Amino acid sequence: MQIYKAPLDEIRFILETFGYNELAGFEGFEDYDLDTAMAVLEESAKFCTNELLPLNRTADQEGLKYNPETGEVTTPKGFKELYEKFVAQGATALTAPPEFGGFGAPHTLGVLQTEFATATNKSFSMCPGLSHGLIDALLNSGTDEQKAQYLPNLISGKWSGTMCLTEPQAGTDLGLCTTKAEPKDNGAYSLTGTKIWITFGEHDLTENIIHLVLARLPDAPPGIKGISTFIVPKYKLDGSANGVMCGGLEHKLGIHASPTCVINFEGAEGYLIGEPHKGMRTMFVMMNAARLFVGMEGIALGEIAYQTAVAFAKDRRQSRSLDRKKIDKDAKADNILVHPDVRRMLANVKVSNEGMRALAYWAAMQIDVAHHHPDEAQRQLADDFVALLTPVIKSYGTERGFANISEAMQVMGGAGYTTDWSVEQYLRDARIGMVYEGTNHIQALDLIGRKLVQGQGRLYRNFSKHMFRFVKANKDNPELAEFTGPLEKAINTLNQTTMALGMKGMQDPEEVGAVGSNYLNLFALTAIAWTWAEQAKAALGKDSKFYRTKLKSARYYYSNILPETESLLALINAGKKNMMEFEAEDF
Amino acid sequence: MQIYKAPLDEIRFILETFGYNELAGFEGFEDYDLDTAMAVLEESAKFCTNELLPLNRTADQEGLKYNPETGEVTTPKGFKELYEKFVAQGATALTAPPEFGGFGAPHTLGVLQTEFATATNKSFSMCPGLSHGLIDALLNSGTDEQKAQYLPNLISGKWSGTMCLTEPQAGTDLGLCTTKAEPKDNGAYSLTGTKIWITFGEHDLTENIIHLVLARLPDAPPGIKGISTFIVPKYKLDGSANGVMCGGLEHKLGIHASPTCVINFEGAEGYLIGEPHKGMRTMFVMMNAARLFVGMEGIALGEIAYQTAVAFAKDRRQSRSLDRKKIDKDAKADNILVHPDVRRMLANVKVSNEGMRALAYWAAMQIDVAHHHPDEAQRQLADDFVALLTPVIKSYGTERGFANISEAMQVMGGAGYTTDWSVEQYLRDARIGMVYEGTNHIQALDLIGRKLVQGQGRLYRNFSKHMFRFVKANKDNPELAEFTGPLEKAINTLNQTTMALGMKGMQDPEEVGAVGSNYLNLFALTAIAWTWAEQAKAALGKDSKFYRTKLKSARYYYSNILPETESLLALINAGKKNMMEFEAEDF
Repeated sequence: MQIYKAPLDEIRFILETFGYNELAGFEGFEDYDLDTAMAVLEESAKFCTNELLPLNRTADQEGLKYNPETGEVTTPKGFKELYEKFVAQGATALTAPPEFGGFGAPHTLGVLQTEFATATNKSFSMCPGLSHGLIDALLNSGTDEQKAQYLPNLISGKWSGTMCLTEPQAGTDLGLCTTKAEPKDNGAYSLTGTKIWITFGEHDLTENIIHLVLARLPDAPPGIKGISTFIVPKYKLDGSANGVMCGGLEHKLGIHASPTCVINFEGAEGYLIGEPHKGMRTMFVMMNAARLFVGMEGIALGEIAYQTAVAFAKDRRQSRSLDRKKIDKDAKADNILVHPDVRRMLANVKVSNEGMRALAYWAAMQIDVAHHHPDEAQRQLADDFVALLTPVIKSYGTERGFANISEAMQVMGGAGYTTDWSVEQYLRDARIGMVYEGTNHIQALDLIGRKLVQGQGRLYRNFSKHMFRFVKANKDNPELAEFTGPLEKAINTLNQTTMALGMKGMQDPEEVGAVGSNYLNLFALTAIAWTWAEQAKAALGKDSKFYRTKLKSARYYYSNILPETESLLALINAGKKNMMEFEAEDF
Repeated sequence: MQIYKAPLDEIRFILETFGYNELAGFEGFEDYDLDTAMAVLEESAKFCTNELLPLNRTADQEGLKYNPETGEVTTPKGFKELYEKFVAQGATALTAPPEFGGFGAPHTLGVLQTEFATATNKSFSMCPGLSHGLIDALLNSGTDEQKAQYLPNLISGKWSGTMCLTEPQAGTDLGLCTTKAEPKDNGAYSLTGTKIWITFGEHDLTENIIHLVLARLPDAPPGIKGISTFIVPKYKLDGSANGVMCGGLEHKLGIHASPTCVINFEGAEGYLIGEPHKGMRTMFVMMNAARLFVGMEGIALGEIAYQTAVAFAKDRRQSRSLDRKKIDKDAKADNILVHPDVRRMLANVKVSNEGMRALAYWAAMQIDVAHHHPDEAQRQLADDFVALLTPVIKSYGTERGFANISEAMQVMGGAGYTTDWSVEQYLRDARIGMVYEGTNHIQALDLIGRKLVQGQGRLYRNFSKHMFRFVKANKDNPELAEFTGPLEKAINTLNQTTMALGMKGMQDPEEVGAVGSNYLNLFALTAIAWTWAEQAKAALGKDSKFYRTKLKSARYYYSNILPETESLLALINAGKKNMMEFEAEDF
């Protein structure tokens, strides 16, 4: 049984509360006011629920077929027709620039659309997801000719894209990459090397597959500073085959319908994108966009798991309420929602997920602000917010998302462990999010080692001020005191911890590595506390069930989720000492 | 790649530290001194590693076959031969009483043997595991005739056993059970009803399958007090078929090679075990024993996942050490064990798992003390320890075990997500432990609602005193001050929390339900802190790598794991308020 209803009311509330209306006023977004945006999303949600969801389980069970002789990959039954419908619906073009055939919608709507697609069919959604990254990279770093050659077909969905970074010996450490790119007479390059973990590196959904490949030019300096980026199409523009071959598929815990390929480049013709040896710049643009999407995966799959657990809980009757007043005398047992622990688990998932969604969509909207705000300072500020929050959302979103799905499963007892309700698939599909696009600890190092130090702490200061502005503006409102007080305390704690960590890190970078992951979670819980305070304010005094529930959820966050910071603080204070005392042989 | 070496040094240390030698002195255990016990375990470990492990992955991939016409279940290739070897090795008989063909070894050794079997092939290990439960139930509640009829073949492994509790409408709430048992002329009963989630309810490994079935007699009062227990063999003792049929198999996240059966009883002949309507007594004996074994599953699978992650980490090189002194100039990248976060994750798993193992084996030894100590008061005390700790070990062991496997997977990046290293299978196989034998929250309710109140708090008081005795005895030892101080504080906190919860619970049971799961974890972390203090004391002043590592691990526990109690305390203090404010429609 697969249960999903896109949380459109929730999304409208988040868009209203966190500034979508301002964004819709920017030049270029005239066609996307809130009502139109919601209409677009409603269509998208309907499509995902009606078309993507029914194929989610069957595709997981059927999996992929690989032909070692031809290198061809066959996707599960129905995927090809589904992809055609998906493309026909314009889903791949929503946020792309009109000059290349896109609809020019705000980036935010693209992120929202991804939530529905991921929730209803994560494996399938990864194909257009990867294309999106390549489109961004081309827009940022491609020549006009390259844009004209590749963008229209990528945006229409006729072709798809990949990201070829990892090699067997080079995963987290891309500087170890050895794929070679040698200049050819025609101005192109000949690429030779093996890439692994290539999502939708080979498949049968599109006419062509365009690979973005990290490789080294003959004169490249060693390490990360000698990496260039190339476009390598499966079929060249003249239609002839290129030297690109899928060498096999990984067998994985989840995303069984998403091909994870070994891709062999054997003298394949490729075209340099951006400057020689500066390939990581292009990749970082692509990865940063991708990281926000990955964080959304935890939220999306957490949402569908939550909805499934709620549906199960509302139907299931076991045991009696501990409060005699709540006993249903007409039945032999009470609905399990009367049991405090069932509520605890459901509330944990609901409230953490709504908080993460608010943070992620606020960040998504900041991407649009960064590109479209008329004021340069505001653009910079928004860009800073995005840079700072991207690793937080990626790491916390996937870690908490995985935990949330497991908690939703727990609500369902044995039923959750069976394939009947699909929650077990969501758990398997979600787990990859903690690993790819930079493992979660890499996000922590990006946050502390790169984002916190950037502009001498400017990014952090601005975000901390932004949160604090809420406290200041609402301090005198007695109805918000239950939030402003604890939020102020939480921000102060984060400020102090950040400063202390910065000092420690200057003396000993290992201290930062040792507590980075816990620090990121502290940051996330504090930032989400801010979003809940904003949500509480927006809900205050409004008389409908939706807003009353919002207030309850905000309170639950402050009493039952934010306190997780207590342990994180203790672990951060513990530092590296007892961790680094172990020698390699002690493990 | 499947990597496992039974942690025999670790086990010997735990047995020495937590009183195995005293136990070996009891009447009946003359043949099982520590050296002999270790020799038995070494053989068992060798068998599991050489025979069970190679079939673990293949059996998971092949799964089970069910024939709907005959109701027959075919286990994966190699299981039948493996089971024969397992039986020939005497593995099913180790701890059973000699008068029925057993070897009379301490129960502790049976638990230890299960750790190896579960780690190397959880699906397979569940078959003898269930028989073990039935043997216990028969020893406790069977008549002499029943014992003579069933025990020898169950103990030799010629037959296997099951536990038939759950029905579609009766899971956690066994009082809703409706299977009927009607008296027959021959003194037996005719059973009719459907049971679900029956582990190894049907299979091809043994000549007969003996079901222990909960059912209602015609004059049974409603609810849990009207349940009786029956033995229902697949084939009657005269060899004729009984009305027992497997109606299908569940499809599950994991344990793919362990049949989870629907079992239909259609006028099947059964034999009453114990008194009419008092069936839950028999079941509780069985379940309590089973719960300790389930807690061990988290430890066992956590161990093999940890060993796999360590092997991967010791081989893998990515990026450079943050500490320049540790850079390996002969290689292009450093071994990932130099990275603090990799150590953090591995140490989290190693140290939490060793602590849980110490607690679980101490509890296992208390079972032997409870049955064999010459002094009645000591037997009662040990029995109390077991009753109190069983739900703690089951719930915390499985919850932390699952989290530990996920953390081990995280060490391995993408590799951990593939089937190549099998950690993904351990994750899937372990997840059921949080659900079966009473979901983890049921353990929390058992702990608080039953065990804490028993004898007006006697069980808790005795255990708290037992832990405190360590503090008192070692307070003046400056070398142990880093443990005794924090341990004293942790015990006091647990004492206060327990008392406060008791008071709250008397006024409002929902307060207990709301925080029960978090309280259980607080209890577990404190109890494990005690085991680490004992381990530190045992290691102190001993000059070998093993003991030095033990001390490091004990320190890591106190600085980096015990602080998880901080958040738990905050959540316990938050109580039920914001959780119970939600109405059913708010979810």
